[in-house]
Amino acid sequence: MAKIKKVVLAYSGGLDTSVILTWLRDTYDCEVVTFTADIGQGEELEPARAKAKKMGVKEIFIDDLKEEFVRDFVFPMFRANTLYEGEYLLGTSIARPLIAKRQIEIANKVGADAVSHGATGKGNDQVRFELGYYALRPDIRIIAPWREWDLTSREKLMAYAEKRGIPVEMKRGKKSPYSMDANLLHISYEGGILEDPWKEPEASMWRWTVAPEKAPNKATYIELTYKKGDITAINGKAMSPATVLATLNQLGGANGIGRTDIVENRYVGMKSRGAYETPGGTIMLKAHRAIESITLDREVAHLKDDLMPRYASLIYNGYWWSPERRMLQEMINASQATVNGVVRLKLYKGNVTVVGRKSDSDSLFDATIATFEEDKGAYNQKDAEGFIKLNALRMRIAAKRKRGKT
Amino acid sequence: MAKIKKVVLAYSGGLDTSVILTWLRDTYDCEVVTFTADIGQGEELEPARAKAKKMGVKEIFIDDLKEEFVRDFVFPMFRANTLYEGEYLLGTSIARPLIAKRQIEIANKVGADAVSHGATGKGNDQVRFELGYYALRPDIRIIAPWREWDLTSREKLMAYAEKRGIPVEMKRGKKSPYSMDANLLHISYEGGILEDPWKEPEASMWRWTVAPEKAPNKATYIELTYKKGDITAINGKAMSPATVLATLNQLGGANGIGRTDIVENRYVGMKSRGAYETPGGTIMLKAHRAIESITLDREVAHLKDDLMPRYASLIYNGYWWSPERRMLQEMINASQATVNGVVRLKLYKGNVTVVGRKSDSDSLFDATIATFEEDKGAYNQKDAEGFIKLNALRMRIAAKRKRGKT
Amino acid sequence: MAKIKKVVLAYSGGLDTSVILTWLRDTYDCEVVTFTADIGQGEELEPARAKAKKMGVKEIFIDDLKEEFVRDFVFPMFRANTLYEGEYLLGTSIARPLIAKRQIEIANKVGADAVSHGATGKGNDQVRFELGYYALRPDIRIIAPWREWDLTSREKLMAYAEKRGIPVEMKRGKKSPYSMDANLLHISYEGGILEDPWKEPEASMWRWTVAPEKAPNKATYIELTYKKGDITAINGKAMSPATVLATLNQLGGANGIGRTDIVENRYVGMKSRGAYETPGGTIMLKAHRAIESITLDREVAHLKDDLMPRYASLIYNGYWWSPERRMLQEMINASQATVNGVVRLKLYKGNVTVVGRKSDSDSLFDATIATFEEDKGAYNQKDAEGFIKLNALRMRIAAKRKRGKT
Amino acid sequence: MAKIKKVVLAYSGGLDTSVILTWLRDTYDCEVVTFTADIGQGEELEPARAKAKKMGVKEIFIDDLKEEFVRDFVFPMFRANTLYEGEYLLGTSIARPLIAKRQIEIANKVGADAVSHGATGKGNDQVRFELGYYALRPDIRIIAPWREWDLTSREKLMAYAEKRGIPVEMKRGKKSPYSMDANLLHISYEGGILEDPWKEPEASMWRWTVAPEKAPNKATYIELTYKKGDITAINGKAMSPATVLATLNQLGGANGIGRTDIVENRYVGMKSRGAYETPGGTIMLKAHRAIESITLDREVAHLKDDLMPRYASLIYNGYWWSPERRMLQEMINASQATVNGVVRLKLYKGNVTVVGRKSDSDSLFDATIATFEEDKGAYNQKDAEGFIKLNALRMRIAAKRKRGKT
Repeated sequence: MAKIKKVVLAYSGGLDTSVILTWLRDTYDCEVVTFTADIGQGEELEPARAKAKKMGVKEIFIDDLKEEFVRDFVFPMFRANTLYEGEYLLGTSIARPLIAKRQIEIANKVGADAVSHGATGKGNDQVRFELGYYALRPDIRIIAPWREWDLTSREKLMAYAEKRGIPVEMKRGKKSPYSMDANLLHISYEGGILEDPWKEPEASMWRWTVAPEKAPNKATYIELTYKKGDITAINGKAMSPATVLATLNQLGGANGIGRTDIVENRYVGMKSRGAYETPGGTIMLKAHRAIESITLDREVAHLKDDLMPRYASLIYNGYWWSPERRMLQEMINASQATVNGVVRLKLYKGNVTVVGRKSDSDSLFDATIATFEEDKGAYNQKDAEGFIKLNALRMRIAAKRKRGKT
Repeated sequence: MAKIKKVVLAYSGGLDTSVILTWLRDTYDCEVVTFTADIGQGEELEPARAKAKKMGVKEIFIDDLKEEFVRDFVFPMFRANTLYEGEYLLGTSIARPLIAKRQIEIANKVGADAVSHGATGKGNDQVRFELGYYALRPDIRIIAPWREWDLTSREKLMAYAEKRGIPVEMKRGKKSPYSMDANLLHISYEGGILEDPWKEPEASMWRWTVAPEKAPNKATYIELTYKKGDITAINGKAMSPATVLATLNQLGGANGIGRTDIVENRYVGMKSRGAYETPGGTIMLKAHRAIESITLDREVAHLKDDLMPRYASLIYNGYWWSPERRMLQEMINASQATVNGVVRLKLYKGNVTVVGRKSDSDSLFDATIATFEEDKGAYNQKDAEGFIKLNALRMRIAAKRKRGKT
Repeated sequence: MAKIKKVVLAYSGGLDTSVILTWLRDTYDCEVVTFTADIGQGEELEPARAKAKKMGVKEIFIDDLKEEFVRDFVFPMFRANTLYEGEYLLGTSIARPLIAKRQIEIANKVGADAVSHGATGKGNDQVRFELGYYALRPDIRIIAPWREWDLTSREKLMAYAEKRGIPVEMKRGKKSPYSMDANLLHISYEGGILEDPWKEPEASMWRWTVAPEKAPNKATYIELTYKKGDITAINGKAMSPATVLATLNQLGGANGIGRTDIVENRYVGMKSRGAYETPGGTIMLKAHRAIESITLDREVAHLKDDLMPRYASLIYNGYWWSPERRMLQEMINASQATVNGVVRLKLYKGNVTVVGRKSDSDSLFDATIATFEEDKGAYNQKDAEGFIKLNALRMRIAAKRKRGKT
Repeated sequence: MAKIKKVVLAYSGGLDTSVILTWLRDTYDCEVVTFTADIGQGEELEPARAKAKKMGVKEIFIDDLKEEFVRDFVFPMFRANTLYEGEYLLGTSIARPLIAKRQIEIANKVGADAVSHGATGKGNDQVRFELGYYALRPDIRIIAPWREWDLTSREKLMAYAEKRGIPVEMKRGKKSPYSMDANLLHISYEGGILEDPWKEPEASMWRWTVAPEKAPNKATYIELTYKKGDITAINGKAMSPATVLATLNQLGGANGIGRTDIVENRYVGMKSRGAYETPGGTIMLKAHRAIESITLDREVAHLKDDLMPRYASLIYNGYWWSPERRMLQEMINASQATVNGVVRLKLYKGNVTVVGRKSDSDSLFDATIATFEEDKGAYNQKDAEGFIKLNALRMRIAAKRKRGKT
């Protein structure tokens, strides 16, 4: 196999990726370019730059991708009311394709022949990164240290760090027994006592939301404005996509909204326990369904619902850059042309309740037809008889043949 | 068309169906048999018997169908994690097929040639009743007075009642501006100010649940035991299906759980606003997903998720007795053989949170594989490389053909 | 109900629609505008004009819609490899939406308040026409004489024609015991001995194709050129859509290709026997799958296959103008960007055999990877081990739990 | 990794698996047990026994699995009208799970700790074998020599054979440039000039069917009797499953039926060209759809059609023993209870034409309703108006909102 000359590493500035940085040089005798992205994980990026510099990295890329993340990844996904396995809002899954794309762009720019990441060989993230790399640059060399090296435990990793002089204060999440990941959409927790699905996580684990018990005793009401399926304003104030999500995170977090605790099925074949805080996303899912409820045709909505689990699996499994995800997205986007209007929500101690929805331009709710009062001929009740009779016909014919009974 | 001799009327004892009773005799000069079912709507049935008697009905059927309702209708539906349009737990929809079935059984027994119901010509319920009637007795005559008569407003109905001496104290829901329907699974509200989807219903509308604001400040923890996908015990105490649901309604209602406010798409073609209280059902949905999360194979779970919206629509649209619903049910039931175990839940001010799930007999959660710690060879991380490479192959080939880029 | 002033009638020039023309005037005392379309049914249109004139029609519309029919209806449908119930190429179904659209355009132009058609109350065509009318002009009045009048048998119809002086020589298909419908895509037969599904239609029924037995003893080879999923040339000669289809009809018909004899499920609830000749369409389906086989990504092709039956039902049931059909079409069309190339076919006595397919610009077939010979590292066979192991993991975990065995 | 003691090899008696037999001993110093199955490939098995004996194998298993193959694998698959990618009848795919199952049974019986097969690392068969092995015995060791050894070309393989004294007369398919696989359902061809998808295979390639050109000039008519979806008699003569298929192969082959030439998408990620002869299967698919057309409810049939591509992919990809395939099978089998009756077919020079279908017990075809003649009230045409109006309602409401137009 050809020698590697230059590798672009997805670098967080933490201990693990710092060890990887060193290990890559030790093992492949290659130059390492670091790439650190701000996707709203809530950490300063300058320390990562400083560390990379101190470790002698010559080409350091630090990008603020928050707007691109929400506009081109989070929002399109929410247009489909996406939930994996009925519960998971895909906070980690949706960030990986962006990292992969940017990493390949940088590799192309700096003339690198390889990329590397810090995801383990047991998880979904390696798949999400690498399917992205391969789809966007099919001949790229990928180095996944966790699948290659012999630093197979935290102890060995620490020993290596010490031996190679990597500062241990770099250790991220030191006080946490959990493996965490964060971006503007969510923060996730795995490992620790979560490895026993019968145990409840301790209250101290959660970082982004207050417990419902500690949320305000008074509800917060908000109004979200939708244009083509995306939120463009909160309480009438226009905002950029990333600002929308940040604002909803703040509102949701303060009201104890968005905690999820599930056992999910990984693409690589095992079940794993995860806990998530997705305050803004939880609000957005509820609100998007509400605005669609008055602006989408029934059968369009049902077609979207039928395909949603498949779309969710594609994202969960790392197929964002696949042609089938793009093809589904075409359809989803086409459906959103009429999804315009306003949703009013009540936020209270963990609950998101829809209390109103309206759309001057696109509402299909027709009070004159739906009313319980006299409708002056808008709807002829006698039509229902024929409707039912023809819908029943096949069952009647079958029943006459002495079938169809329990 | 042949003359009608005897008709079995689904009779609630309220004003509407009492008017229908009289109108049927007036219009068809036929004998009317009344049928009143207890499906947990929370009303005394003996008054209905007394009223029917007073109105001269000779054959009066009053049945307690609560156990059959939950065992043969509600529980099978929950095995599929059924939600219509992402929100509605189908409380009304799932009760109609049972009423239809029992009504036909009575018609067969008493030698009736027709059945009648009090559902309007604008709603889904007429469809649900009548598809059931036709599927179970294809030659039955159906009389749907709301589609036939000229009592097209409440005023005309009242006038008719007065003229024909039907006691006005019979009027049900007198103080409520809402059209309501209740059974052991839920209570529903339509009409009134709900006809404007922008208006929040007044606090006084809700009847089964306390507002989250008024729920206890301390969480309630419960444990639900599952056998083949159905709950058989609460907090270790074995219970019949109807008792399970009644108990969960009580627990949920006391903790402010189960309110939903949506705009839904009716089968007859219009959108309508509905508010629902489904306290026990809300708990059951969350808990069932949790027990499945550790006991179901991933692809089985995904297949169920893919088909759920279709199954939900079948029930919503009234096709419970159709061959396709039965066929789907075969598959759903087959999937539940391993859905055994216990789920632990926290109920607090409107929130249902899963805090634990276990299954001694059937858990597929394997901590030795999922762990972040060393797994002693249970999983070979190197396998992931080949897995990713072959999954990426088609995208790499395409990318080499200069495709697949945005 | 408001009086009707002017009605646009879909007029074939045959006996039935001539009777309808008269009956409309008799019954509604309204003006009748006739509309006759050439969609390739193979009949002269001028006689229809002459008859309409003779019957005193003042506004007569006769349109050649063949190119629009193939370009905007047939070709888009074939992009999806559409088959209803595994067998039917939807020849009748796909023509109705175009007729409906044009009829509404004429109604708008001439200021008509109603439209009328000659489809019976038992078939699918009434649904296809009327869903189109309503979708394109929601307030249109529709007159479906077969559902209204008392001319419920052929005898009564003939008697009416005689009484009202409608020339009996107008009678179409006089010598045929079958009800027929034709357009550029197909000719269909119903009724007569076809009403017994056990009986084989007589050889004389078929009109467009020779029997395979009478087709040439020597095969015909052709090459079809595809651009974005549509055929643009035959044997290298560029042609318009309608010319493509007409040419393939001639080639297929001469080689005994395209006869189908099925029992299908009508939207209105009963089963019916139909026989169809679709020579060009049969060739197109086979060829389109072949060109897709080398130019479409696997998962895109599978997604299309999964949704095809649903798309087919939408067209069969008359929902061409629905938002859900349009939404699916967006996705289907998006998939065809790379469907470019050439397919070589052998036509012989009823058989269409693909004997070659190529695409210089878009083939995803990579001989260096697929070869049985040494591939010089294009594919690493060892990758398969990890691929299989991770795909098997969930089943292995389950099997260890003593499950998964028969 | 633990040493291997005893391995069960799927042994054909040909050169490749004879080399594998020797290589396994050389490489793993283990005992090899051979297993050769008769699944209708049309080769004598006793030579395989003799060769194995000569090579010193002590435990030799030779099983006639033809009846089990058709009864438990082929027939269940045909109940679903299964086609992969619209064309492929899955002849190879459906045989692998049976081989895998029997191989594991033998491994359990003889106390083997490993199994081995001769499938390459590029194909689907390795996946089908190994997913079966793992699902049925999760801890089994699998040896796939083609992925491990360095005999990466035919030349190297031949050299090894010569060196180790393996008789070269063993070479199977010596005169054929194609890689072939056969069983009672089909024979397949890959490689050779098929590696260029533009080239037509030479006439001499095909082995099981005559060319349509050389088939009899007179059609053959046959009648197939169905019970619960499976064929139980041909021309009124009851037959076992394997005899049914063998008879149909003979009939189809003689009439030039069942050749397919496609480019398919392999599970491992590349496209490959394959040619297949499936004479009996081609007849069975057509006939099964025909008997279902009169005995299956419309929506049941459509549900089956919607899920068929997924079911086909599961089999193609090797997931026969997966829980999701079994779950789908439950549903498919449940649907076949009424699939009873007789289908009459015409076989002529490559064409299979349905000319009749009947079912005394289960036909849902009702001539009195479908007729074009007067039906004496069996169907009320006026019902269609309400049916259409309510189905159109959502589109009318939308159109009134100035939407829904192109």
